[in-house]
Amino acid sequence: MTTTSSDLAQLLPAGRVIGDPARLASFAHDEAAGASYALPTAVVQPRDTADVAAVVAYCAERGVPVVARGAGTGLSGGANATDGCVVVSFAAMNRIVHIDPDERLAVVQPGVVNDDLRAACAAKGLWYPPDPASAPWSTIGGNVATNAGGLCCVKYGVTRDYVLGLEAVTGRGEVVRLGRRTAKSSAGFELAGLLVGSEGTLGLVTEVTLRLRGERAQEHTVVGYFDDLPSAGRAVAQVVACGVVPSALELVDRYCLQAVDAWKNMGLTDSGNVLLLARCDAPGAAGAEEAGTVLACFEAAGATWAARSGDPTESEALFAARRLVYPALDRLGMVLSEDICVPRSLVPDMLARLERTARRHGVRIAGLAHAGDGNLHPMLVVPRGDERELAKGREVFEEVVDQAIALGGTVTGEHGVGLLKRRGLAKEFGPAVMDLHRGIKDVWDPAGILNPGKIFTA
Amino acid sequence: MTTTSSDLAQLLPAGRVIGDPARLASFAHDEAAGASYALPTAVVQPRDTADVAAVVAYCAERGVPVVARGAGTGLSGGANATDGCVVVSFAAMNRIVHIDPDERLAVVQPGVVNDDLRAACAAKGLWYPPDPASAPWSTIGGNVATNAGGLCCVKYGVTRDYVLGLEAVTGRGEVVRLGRRTAKSSAGFELAGLLVGSEGTLGLVTEVTLRLRGERAQEHTVVGYFDDLPSAGRAVAQVVACGVVPSALELVDRYCLQAVDAWKNMGLTDSGNVLLLARCDAPGAAGAEEAGTVLACFEAAGATWAARSGDPTESEALFAARRLVYPALDRLGMVLSEDICVPRSLVPDMLARLERTARRHGVRIAGLAHAGDGNLHPMLVVPRGDERELAKGREVFEEVVDQAIALGGTVTGEHGVGLLKRRGLAKEFGPAVMDLHRGIKDVWDPAGILNPGKIFTA
Repeated sequence: MTTTSSDLAQLLPAGRVIGDPARLASFAHDEAAGASYALPTAVVQPRDTADVAAVVAYCAERGVPVVARGAGTGLSGGANATDGCVVVSFAAMNRIVHIDPDERLAVVQPGVVNDDLRAACAAKGLWYPPDPASAPWSTIGGNVATNAGGLCCVKYGVTRDYVLGLEAVTGRGEVVRLGRRTAKSSAGFELAGLLVGSEGTLGLVTEVTLRLRGERAQEHTVVGYFDDLPSAGRAVAQVVACGVVPSALELVDRYCLQAVDAWKNMGLTDSGNVLLLARCDAPGAAGAEEAGTVLACFEAAGATWAARSGDPTESEALFAARRLVYPALDRLGMVLSEDICVPRSLVPDMLARLERTARRHGVRIAGLAHAGDGNLHPMLVVPRGDERELAKGREVFEEVVDQAIALGGTVTGEHGVGLLKRRGLAKEFGPAVMDLHRGIKDVWDPAGILNPGKIFTA
Repeated sequence: MTTTSSDLAQLLPAGRVIGDPARLASFAHDEAAGASYALPTAVVQPRDTADVAAVVAYCAERGVPVVARGAGTGLSGGANATDGCVVVSFAAMNRIVHIDPDERLAVVQPGVVNDDLRAACAAKGLWYPPDPASAPWSTIGGNVATNAGGLCCVKYGVTRDYVLGLEAVTGRGEVVRLGRRTAKSSAGFELAGLLVGSEGTLGLVTEVTLRLRGERAQEHTVVGYFDDLPSAGRAVAQVVACGVVPSALELVDRYCLQAVDAWKNMGLTDSGNVLLLARCDAPGAAGAEEAGTVLACFEAAGATWAARSGDPTESEALFAARRLVYPALDRLGMVLSEDICVPRSLVPDMLARLERTARRHGVRIAGLAHAGDGNLHPMLVVPRGDERELAKGREVFEEVVDQAIALGGTVTGEHGVGLLKRRGLAKEFGPAVMDLHRGIKDVWDPAGILNPGKIFTA
């Protein structure tokens, strides 16, 4: 046991501090491929806000780095441990404090798993929309830290759009309540929204007040297969232009379909090369009308096969296949996952650039995209342990990031900056805006202990 | 001409600086009743971002306060001039730079009038939802500064929900671009959202990129008259609980109706004491269904008369009457306008407290509310020039603000803090959160020149 871990064991109840190096390893990093990490000096598992405040105050006094961690499903290294740090794992703070149907809000601890919250809301006829692919495992705290998106955010917005208020512990160890419980407010600076997406660099979120929606109408699914990426890209651009806002519009290319088929034998590749999946959930007859419009867009763009799916089971199976892409690729090697977002009418352009880039570098880039909001997740699979291929893959993706910036896009649509996007972020924003970031961090965390080196270098 | 105004005249093209005291007076304050102000030392009317940056840099070097101003329709003193300040009037920066139907966004200069933008969007089949009552006069820059709301924000959100990106001049005179043009992003801190609602204390907004929606479906109007506030309040609570999210849900009490009748002779008070106006805009048949549900809620809560209005002209007339309330009261004296927001199921409770408070102080409080989102605008009319009555009115409203805080509400739903809500804000947030505000201001505005003394004291 290090001094830090035995000190922390004095501060917290029994069993809340892990100092055993063998156990520490499983808290050392998230799922980002090729992001650096170190072994933490201790892991703490707080029960409540007071535990968190005590740990942060201890660390602030001694200059010990503090890294917050949800389920560790992040893809940018945001939760990676740094040398000598204390990892605060929120897994045990997983209570749904309160769901209020009249106010349409939920109050939750940060360790609540996204799907668990969604199930609890559904039981009361309510809906928490943000649905990252990691929803079965990832926590609300992690979703807040990265401003997580998902499939339905093309119509319903991202995590930040649902955060009304937060309780957080600042880098001084102070507990603050930010935001509100009311439907709207113009009271002072929007500090709750500032903490969303700040990846644990400004404060540790200890409670979240979330806006909910009522149950949505039944979804209509439209499926289209296309010969190639340009025609699928055209279909996306036509849907965007036709005025319908689908509740999901996903693109899956042949490489991804093959990986899923190889694992689950779903026969996806028999039907075509590029799959587009759309959902429409306007209430009543309007939903079916929207689905008809989307179908017409798919056909006009040259779909080889397209249809509305009246069968919820079949439709769910196709969306499940889309969710299997990442684990299916993960079976083949280490997955480098990109997360660029471009203006949505430029999706065809960005897809073409990806194809050219892959060809130039002699690599194969798997294409998966929340196409309706311009958020592309190109993926590269490299042999595990092959440092040269990993480095090459990262280089290819740095190029891709620059292409996204050149198209007026952003370096991360929903995964966050963490360690992997720091160069891109600095390029996207420029030095004056990065200085504002550093200044704001100093205000919240004057000792510089909260997730140092994430988002930007100190 | 002061030194400042003749210096500024050197920096800017001819005709862009006003130094004549007689003309300065019309730029000295907004429409807040009883908020202090002084005569500015100069008013500048920049044409572009470079003009703004030059003025701010000049003022930063000399410690001259800078107060940004849109149309001056604010109700909290946020645009009031302070002693020796330069007012930057954005009226001449009123260009709609670009409306992009595919990306569903608009790029505008801050001086664009809200209704002008809405009309330009409508011409392209698009919709910019935020609709403050001041929309015919107020500017997008002012709407951004106060995070303005309006009638439809109960369903469609407030200004911040539509701001994708901003260009701004910081207190150092630096031009920065914040936010994005893409549908989503998790890139760094949400600095665009931070500037929205910051009332010119962090930066001067010189360009705004706004998210747009497609044209909405036809609205169905439901009208209900009630004998008293408690029964109208119950109707609101029932609508909130029934699961329908109306696109407007407005409450107008007898005092307001009388004021409009006295001016426009609309016969509103013949029908009842408290008017509720609802609109529903779900697409297709769902819209009419929603209206039916709202009607049933009104009737169940004891409406003396309630009906769906099939006639758009009649419906528009009733909403127009609601918009006339403020000017109608303004004819009777100086209007003190409150802007508290409470959890929406507590609207009946807050209305009851307002009635008791009025009775206790022997005053009459006019009741106007965006009832569906819990945002109440109680108003007090005091004789113009009667300082004692004004002071008494302010005292009554300080009590009302405390009541809203006690109910878990906020001191401002959509008007901003300005000068009038500073005490309430400090009480709502507490010292630690106010210190975060001060720290963040120091980062953006180290010389402390941007709208000093607004939102909080230095």
